[in-house]
Amino acid sequence: MARSPARPLSGERLTATYHLIGTPEQARERAEDISVEQTVEFPPDLISDPAIRTEVVGSVQSVDEIGPALHRAVVAFPVEVAGRELTQLMNVLFGNVSLIPGVRLVSVALPERVLKAYKGPRFGKRGIRDRVGVAGRPLLATAIKPMGLPVRALAEMAYQFALGGVDIIKDDHGLADQRFGGFEERVARVSRAVRRCLYAPNITAPADQVIRRARRAKAEGAGGLLIAPGLTGLDAVRCVADDDDTALAILSHPAMQGAFTVHQGAGISHGLLFGTLNRLAGADAAIFPNFGGRFTFTEAACRDLADRAGEPMGHIKPIFPVPAGGMSLDRVPEMRQFYGNEVILLIGGDLHRHGATPRESAQKFADALKQ
Amino acid sequence: MARSPARPLSGERLTATYHLIGTPEQARERAEDISVEQTVEFPPDLISDPAIRTEVVGSVQSVDEIGPALHRAVVAFPVEVAGRELTQLMNVLFGNVSLIPGVRLVSVALPERVLKAYKGPRFGKRGIRDRVGVAGRPLLATAIKPMGLPVRALAEMAYQFALGGVDIIKDDHGLADQRFGGFEERVARVSRAVRRCLYAPNITAPADQVIRRARRAKAEGAGGLLIAPGLTGLDAVRCVADDDDTALAILSHPAMQGAFTVHQGAGISHGLLFGTLNRLAGADAAIFPNFGGRFTFTEAACRDLADRAGEPMGHIKPIFPVPAGGMSLDRVPEMRQFYGNEVILLIGGDLHRHGATPRESAQKFADALKQ
Repeated sequence: MARSPARPLSGERLTATYHLIGTPEQARERAEDISVEQTVEFPPDLISDPAIRTEVVGSVQSVDEIGPALHRAVVAFPVEVAGRELTQLMNVLFGNVSLIPGVRLVSVALPERVLKAYKGPRFGKRGIRDRVGVAGRPLLATAIKPMGLPVRALAEMAYQFALGGVDIIKDDHGLADQRFGGFEERVARVSRAVRRCLYAPNITAPADQVIRRARRAKAEGAGGLLIAPGLTGLDAVRCVADDDDTALAILSHPAMQGAFTVHQGAGISHGLLFGTLNRLAGADAAIFPNFGGRFTFTEAACRDLADRAGEPMGHIKPIFPVPAGGMSLDRVPEMRQFYGNEVILLIGGDLHRHGATPRESAQKFADALKQ
Repeated sequence: MARSPARPLSGERLTATYHLIGTPEQARERAEDISVEQTVEFPPDLISDPAIRTEVVGSVQSVDEIGPALHRAVVAFPVEVAGRELTQLMNVLFGNVSLIPGVRLVSVALPERVLKAYKGPRFGKRGIRDRVGVAGRPLLATAIKPMGLPVRALAEMAYQFALGGVDIIKDDHGLADQRFGGFEERVARVSRAVRRCLYAPNITAPADQVIRRARRAKAEGAGGLLIAPGLTGLDAVRCVADDDDTALAILSHPAMQGAFTVHQGAGISHGLLFGTLNRLAGADAAIFPNFGGRFTFTEAACRDLADRAGEPMGHIKPIFPVPAGGMSLDRVPEMRQFYGNEVILLIGGDLHRHGATPRESAQKFADALKQ
């Protein structure tokens, strides 16, 4: 079973950096395992053709100790193994590795030959700013909720939020297509109610419905879309972003993606997943749980995420970080200090504490930014 | 913001069972948080309408201590919150919970009102047995690999495996649609080579390509399909399973799904994810890393998974567990002892150690079963 690859490969490589828990020997061995597991998944001693071993199998570039029982390993993979498809790129970076404890994918370096297979975000930060007509300050976002309210009430709430000065209104991500609030009625009513700001209905949906809902949202006048790639698969984001018949700004929601980031000793780092990979897929803004909220992201992880959302990445546009997850009005000045102006501040439930009406609450949100 | 749900709900509930790490007080509080987080995601004190609180918000059924700093909590959710869509069902069970450390989803109880939204596996165990014409023993499966071999060589390998007596041949899951082995050429050549057994090409693909590849595989004569729901999203499996123009048996591959199961203190239990949820989505057989292989599943987790693959689940057919991940010929008797006959034994790379040709290797695999 020892023949050469059909055609010689380019020799070009993408690299993936993993944090590995264990002794130096264990880390070195693990890195070598990964170089095989993520490519040929075949006992190296049974590969008799040296061309497959040298051209197809990954290669360990370095293994460095970075802490007690913690190592950083860089593994290079032939760009052809990742092909031109996001599913296979993710598979090479982390497919079977996801089954191994003590391995965390922390960064990737994708050469232009890989990046050019992806259009990335259609709008990015600048495109969203153009759409909402706001410069020089963070954008303000909130959600219509709770589920169970009649669609009329959600539309009225959205209308008032818009009047009060919120820039972006998204569906709560639990609003799908349930009996008590069908997608089509919601997107139609709320889109009409909030012409003055960007409404992002939730198109997280069955695989054969995502594009249909995206186009329906567009037809009803929605200004953007909300999608949870952890539920739909990451490539569904790319599909929607690339769809010329949709052409709406996309906010990614972290539901279910948390399984990748929640343990430091496994999974994918927050920054890489939300800041780089969701961006590569085409999200124009990535929602994530800010530090100090209901969830447990650290300040350092949030900084890393925000940095990656904006760092140079070939032709892939920079996107907005959207810290959320139990944020409150009193944290607005601190969040602005931390993230600067290039951020979308998303406050959901807490916003309702601050006014007798959604309009008043939204006004207080806008006021908080002026402090 | 306190109006009633649009229409009264049925009152029927699905339940989810979580393992929670912490003190009894922390566990109780966490369970209450989950009941809110996974439904209204809204401060309960701001929901002035009791109908939303009682009908829409989840309810904690029980919290029991089951070990040191470990609790089992059962939370009930209105069936209407989960709607009729797998993406939203997964969202309710684990969407935002995935962001919380110390919470593991271990089982679900889905009433018929929820199950009836899903057709489940088209074939199940019995349908696969009928297709390959084998009764009274485990089925034997292997993979064509390593990536990098020309398609002709992969087809020849598959042909020999089939001659040697393997029942099911799958693509290595890293074979996607790369330069060195395009999907269309592979599925055509290999399907022709292995008429006598079930060939399952890998249709893990971009969101807009999955169904196209499934149908192409069918047209070329493939007998089954391989798909990694961790890469495509779980609902892509349902889409393919429900597609009458495809109608092929589906093997699910665990790539990327490992992120959910790898840490005991978070994620989703192996048994629930692979044995129940992949089955609900429509996989006819679920591949997973067997204990004692390259990965770290425990014997108990594998037992639980196999039990769930076969347990009663309304109209949802029982499916095959497919232990794999570094299995070797010498473990065949032990695996048969452990899993009985209702299993597909998948041996990949190691099989190549045992014969001068793939045919001879396959014969030794069949022989091992006779011992």
